[in-house]
Amino acid sequence: MRLLLLNPNTSEALTERLATSARTVLPAGVTLQTVTAKRGFPYISSRSEAQVAGAIVLETLADCGDSWDGAIVAAFGDPGLLAARELFDRPVVGMSEAAMITALSLGQRFAFVTFTPRMVPWYEEQVRLAGLTGRFAGTFLPDAEMGDVTRVAEDMATPLTLTCQRAAQHADVIILAGAPIAGLAPVIQDDVPAILLDPIRAALLQCVTNVTLSPFGAWAGSMATPPGKDSTGLPEALASQFLKGAQGLAD
Amino acid sequence: MRLLLLNPNTSEALTERLATSARTVLPAGVTLQTVTAKRGFPYISSRSEAQVAGAIVLETLADCGDSWDGAIVAAFGDPGLLAARELFDRPVVGMSEAAMITALSLGQRFAFVTFTPRMVPWYEEQVRLAGLTGRFAGTFLPDAEMGDVTRVAEDMATPLTLTCQRAAQHADVIILAGAPIAGLAPVIQDDVPAILLDPIRAALLQCVTNVTLSPFGAWAGSMATPPGKDSTGLPEALASQFLKGAQGLAD
Amino acid sequence: MRLLLLNPNTSEALTERLATSARTVLPAGVTLQTVTAKRGFPYISSRSEAQVAGAIVLETLADCGDSWDGAIVAAFGDPGLLAARELFDRPVVGMSEAAMITALSLGQRFAFVTFTPRMVPWYEEQVRLAGLTGRFAGTFLPDAEMGDVTRVAEDMATPLTLTCQRAAQHADVIILAGAPIAGLAPVIQDDVPAILLDPIRAALLQCVTNVTLSPFGAWAGSMATPPGKDSTGLPEALASQFLKGAQGLAD
Amino acid sequence: MRLLLLNPNTSEALTERLATSARTVLPAGVTLQTVTAKRGFPYISSRSEAQVAGAIVLETLADCGDSWDGAIVAAFGDPGLLAARELFDRPVVGMSEAAMITALSLGQRFAFVTFTPRMVPWYEEQVRLAGLTGRFAGTFLPDAEMGDVTRVAEDMATPLTLTCQRAAQHADVIILAGAPIAGLAPVIQDDVPAILLDPIRAALLQCVTNVTLSPFGAWAGSMATPPGKDSTGLPEALASQFLKGAQGLAD
Amino acid sequence: MRLLLLNPNTSEALTERLATSARTVLPAGVTLQTVTAKRGFPYISSRSEAQVAGAIVLETLADCGDSWDGAIVAAFGDPGLLAARELFDRPVVGMSEAAMITALSLGQRFAFVTFTPRMVPWYEEQVRLAGLTGRFAGTFLPDAEMGDVTRVAEDMATPLTLTCQRAAQHADVIILAGAPIAGLAPVIQDDVPAILLDPIRAALLQCVTNVTLSPFGAWAGSMATPPGKDSTGLPEALASQFLKGAQGLAD
Amino acid sequence: MRLLLLNPNTSEALTERLATSARTVLPAGVTLQTVTAKRGFPYISSRSEAQVAGAIVLETLADCGDSWDGAIVAAFGDPGLLAARELFDRPVVGMSEAAMITALSLGQRFAFVTFTPRMVPWYEEQVRLAGLTGRFAGTFLPDAEMGDVTRVAEDMATPLTLTCQRAAQHADVIILAGAPIAGLAPVIQDDVPAILLDPIRAALLQCVTNVTLSPFGAWAGSMATPPGKDSTGLPEALASQFLKGAQGLAD
Repeated sequence: MRLLLLNPNTSEALTERLATSARTVLPAGVTLQTVTAKRGFPYISSRSEAQVAGAIVLETLADCGDSWDGAIVAAFGDPGLLAARELFDRPVVGMSEAAMITALSLGQRFAFVTFTPRMVPWYEEQVRLAGLTGRFAGTFLPDAEMGDVTRVAEDMATPLTLTCQRAAQHADVIILAGAPIAGLAPVIQDDVPAILLDPIRAALLQCVTNVTLSPFGAWAGSMATPPGKDSTGLPEALASQFLKGAQGLAD
Repeated sequence: MRLLLLNPNTSEALTERLATSARTVLPAGVTLQTVTAKRGFPYISSRSEAQVAGAIVLETLADCGDSWDGAIVAAFGDPGLLAARELFDRPVVGMSEAAMITALSLGQRFAFVTFTPRMVPWYEEQVRLAGLTGRFAGTFLPDAEMGDVTRVAEDMATPLTLTCQRAAQHADVIILAGAPIAGLAPVIQDDVPAILLDPIRAALLQCVTNVTLSPFGAWAGSMATPPGKDSTGLPEALASQFLKGAQGLAD
Repeated sequence: MRLLLLNPNTSEALTERLATSARTVLPAGVTLQTVTAKRGFPYISSRSEAQVAGAIVLETLADCGDSWDGAIVAAFGDPGLLAARELFDRPVVGMSEAAMITALSLGQRFAFVTFTPRMVPWYEEQVRLAGLTGRFAGTFLPDAEMGDVTRVAEDMATPLTLTCQRAAQHADVIILAGAPIAGLAPVIQDDVPAILLDPIRAALLQCVTNVTLSPFGAWAGSMATPPGKDSTGLPEALASQFLKGAQGLAD
Repeated sequence: MRLLLLNPNTSEALTERLATSARTVLPAGVTLQTVTAKRGFPYISSRSEAQVAGAIVLETLADCGDSWDGAIVAAFGDPGLLAARELFDRPVVGMSEAAMITALSLGQRFAFVTFTPRMVPWYEEQVRLAGLTGRFAGTFLPDAEMGDVTRVAEDMATPLTLTCQRAAQHADVIILAGAPIAGLAPVIQDDVPAILLDPIRAALLQCVTNVTLSPFGAWAGSMATPPGKDSTGLPEALASQFLKGAQGLAD
Repeated sequence: MRLLLLNPNTSEALTERLATSARTVLPAGVTLQTVTAKRGFPYISSRSEAQVAGAIVLETLADCGDSWDGAIVAAFGDPGLLAARELFDRPVVGMSEAAMITALSLGQRFAFVTFTPRMVPWYEEQVRLAGLTGRFAGTFLPDAEMGDVTRVAEDMATPLTLTCQRAAQHADVIILAGAPIAGLAPVIQDDVPAILLDPIRAALLQCVTNVTLSPFGAWAGSMATPPGKDSTGLPEALASQFLKGAQGLAD
Repeated sequence: MRLLLLNPNTSEALTERLATSARTVLPAGVTLQTVTAKRGFPYISSRSEAQVAGAIVLETLADCGDSWDGAIVAAFGDPGLLAARELFDRPVVGMSEAAMITALSLGQRFAFVTFTPRMVPWYEEQVRLAGLTGRFAGTFLPDAEMGDVTRVAEDMATPLTLTCQRAAQHADVIILAGAPIAGLAPVIQDDVPAILLDPIRAALLQCVTNVTLSPFGAWAGSMATPPGKDSTGLPEALASQFLKGAQGLAD
């Protein structure tokens, strides 16, 4: 099984951080390849950046051709997730979605802990879009200002631990939301009276599950690849993916 | 007041159809400029196409610079709407959203009538994302196959009328969903026992309202323009818009 | 287009305050007539008062005959709104409903700021009845005691500004709820980091929109005028309106 | 314990029908007095009629002075219920609300069966206002046309039985909705594989319960009687009730 | 009418406390028999204990044979309630459910006040399972540590009163949750500005109502007794009840 | 990793069927042990049977001591799941819950297809308790009568395939609900235009995921093991598990 960890941010350092955490739970017989967005933003932190990054996710998956059996969109907020799940005929998972649904089988309420208020409304729109508002205990933030995005996990370990302790009064499962804090969970777990979830690990395992189950795949339904379609001005591999579409279907 | 009707499809014929319908309700003193996506798809009909088109909406709005006071994303499903509302400091409205919220003040339940099943799941995700599921009576479709997308309103007038009659048993307000059937409402209204809503007209009027109210604007909140940010490989005007960001804010 | 601003309170001073604010956004070609309830309460502030006032709204609209193309129920909480929408075959809008649905296209979450706790449960029942709980961030109140109801906007400007600042931490759009604070929004907007909505202006513009769209009217559906019906002991114009009912329908 | 059955319709025949059914479950030591609306409609069947009838409910309760310990608003749809509960310091219950909440302890899903489509949207708004949508299986109607409203239970017994059989495929508990079919449940129960609920009996028993529990009454909360208030042009007893308001409270 | 108060805890002192409170509202002509669980836990305070206690509720009801016309599961959280309602062909009510639905007709929002945090998640799962989240204002707890479970009502009267005062800012009706505080409501009511509900009294009266209405019983629907079934290793009376099942039905 | 497949039914044939399907997706390095309930019902098919079976699940898990790292409650409807998750300090998953949450990452709407109407209400209560109603497309059933429960998958393959085709018009993912049809998915997948999910396989993989993630375990939260507690009349191993409770915690 060949999995692809796709970082929609352009920062290679984030890719490395995510892959390091993901590899701690990589099952035997599964390989993990990484790819970093060639264009876009160093670190996505708004809805508008995510809209652009979602299109780049599709480009990047198309560029990677048939080299993957399942893909992980490795940015919290899942830019482009539903679009990618539809366009490609292989499992695609996202960090937010995988963390939320894994949380559902570990406790009753889940919360997000993150490090900057900018993404909160967009994160919470994902909860609503997923129909999981009834299990959601809210987003919790430290007061401290975030500094260098590649060092958040180290610089903010203490305020994030305090924030997790506060969140633990409202939720059974705490999702450490945001690629820059991948890998923080095992560092602070002894100080937090709740289940800590590292979204990239949840996403890696969800992807393994979905690829394992995929032989019973769909050739229809709302996530089926759409019929082939012409386009103008798209990157070549992506245009080709849209043109190919589902085999044998006319629009 | 200078409004911009932005068609995220590349079809000029659709732009013309939409503008013709919109102009029937254009108030005195309001000008309506149109722009058609330079790249993308002739007619968006899937989530993945909408993801790409949403990024193109941002590019196109950036290209239009300061020539507009309010903009209408003129494709049902509202590709890129929330992102555009966030990135630009002027009102941006969408056909789906405007039609749904206008429907809320005309009757108790609204339904969608459209002409092809492919967009239904994506349309319904917009209802859920908007939190309006409790007022939604479902999507209704004719059995007939759609032919040429630019002639849907004419070719399918009869099956769409029958479909509206069926929808009228479940809803007070029927939204004719999809750019290709803009302008159909007045043609068939005498045969349908419900309020018919033409989304482009609802969107035009919603945009006028929001621009009129906008002096009490926000300089914060989740739809405030994000702080300026560097990017790589984006079209120039869009990169410049992201770089400029909100005045005087540092990330 | 002839609009009617109907104040269900008996206070002429409130009518004047509402009309003054509404006229700031009156489009060219639209006339605004006002009418004040002839019986009832100086200022509605409970469910039971609103129940009586709702019946008076129907009486007053019937008294005004065919002099209006669209009407605005100008009391927050919308007494009699759905009943009036049903009984008359012309658009009727309300301050709460119009403010809430306008807010939906300006931001993600809306809040109410008001000046007395008595109406809060009733206001919140309107949110639930409208099915908009998922977008509602709650009601926020100053600690200060309200004094003379006709001078609330002036006397409480400072505590209301502070309350708006508090509400802005939870909502993108703040609705200034209650006729006595119509017109306050532009006064305090520079001090509040959120979109401020003056419900009477939103209602005026919603009414213009609905009248503009109304040629595609309904002659059926749940908001259609009911069949004619006899009554006993109602004011004459209202009895006549009920007796007339929908043309050509038998119960 | 002195209970008041208040029929907001002006039809004495309906009052008699309702009282006859209610008396079959009247506990020892409880007396049931009836009162019929002096003005209004023979049979309420629209939102606008219900708005007017709700105000008449308040008038009628005020007219009855202190002669009652608990009151039943005896029209399905509960015109004026929340207003009456607020204005008077004694328990007031309604047929719709009492039937729905009793159904919650008898099965998982409840349905309405009624005899005319006109009231359906208003009935369903009561379900939404009560927050019980998640337990509601919908409204079921016979195809047959209703004739004389005072003879519905007899004339339509067969089509209503068939409708109940259909509803029983979706619901555990069927509420026979509408005053004209009070007393029908025992007649048709042997032919319906579900629990049949006669709303007037549920309401009578709910009223007994609430009066029994009432010594632990509230002197605050959203259903507390509002402070005294002046009014203009209201019937004398009602004006006096509003003027009296809650003892010792200033607005 | 012969009612059975079944305490699923093994503590006779709790049974006595519950019965004492219930008897204050016992109608003429109704007898109340009590039974205490023969095995299980002195005081249920977790989901796992409630799972076991729910099975014991079924055993105990089977042991009591035909001696009862209606039964009350007298532990807040309602262990085994839906199972008992299904297995036996007579009304079974629970303290949580009866208190919640009674609250719905007394005010708009209800809250729980209880004395230990351990049961809170399980209590709140009952609210969600009942579909009543939209009317629920949350659970409120004193800071004080609970001591002897049989003396909670006396030892914690002051902190519970303060907690009720806090809850009254969010709810119209306060449910005193937990068998050990049965009977506390009348003691503290003068100090709490909200309606206090003693769940065992609400349950007793709900049971009277349901037995009174039961002649229109169901012989189908989801709460109908299942077809007879063999079992292994169950207590004899319970096995016999399962074996008997519904008369004349084959699985 | 040592997983335990616990069949709460007493039928060894069902255990074997479930284990056969589960083993097709068993990862390298994971062992799967099975255990069949020693007492209870051959096949659970009602709420009351599930209540008893849930208690037996706790007994059986206690009997198995420390021989397992994660457990699967292998009956659709998940008897005893939340109780077991709470009582034991290791991951416990259920077939319904695992299938539903896996479905959330494969498509937008999921449906149940099952073979007997008796369990439907209980299955749907699990959807509501899980807060997943917004993603649920309903339960679909064949008209055919079920015969021998151990041969359902073979005897009803054709009617179940037709039912799946019907469900595929409403859902992207179809969950084949019920232990007796474990393993049917691959047999019929070529004839169903939707993603088919075999709950036991989803549960096996969910259990692997949760055990893999479990080092970041909770020592608090609502699923933490309760404090130790005495009991009367419980099977010895279960009593001992309750007595032990969480280490170092006093109630």
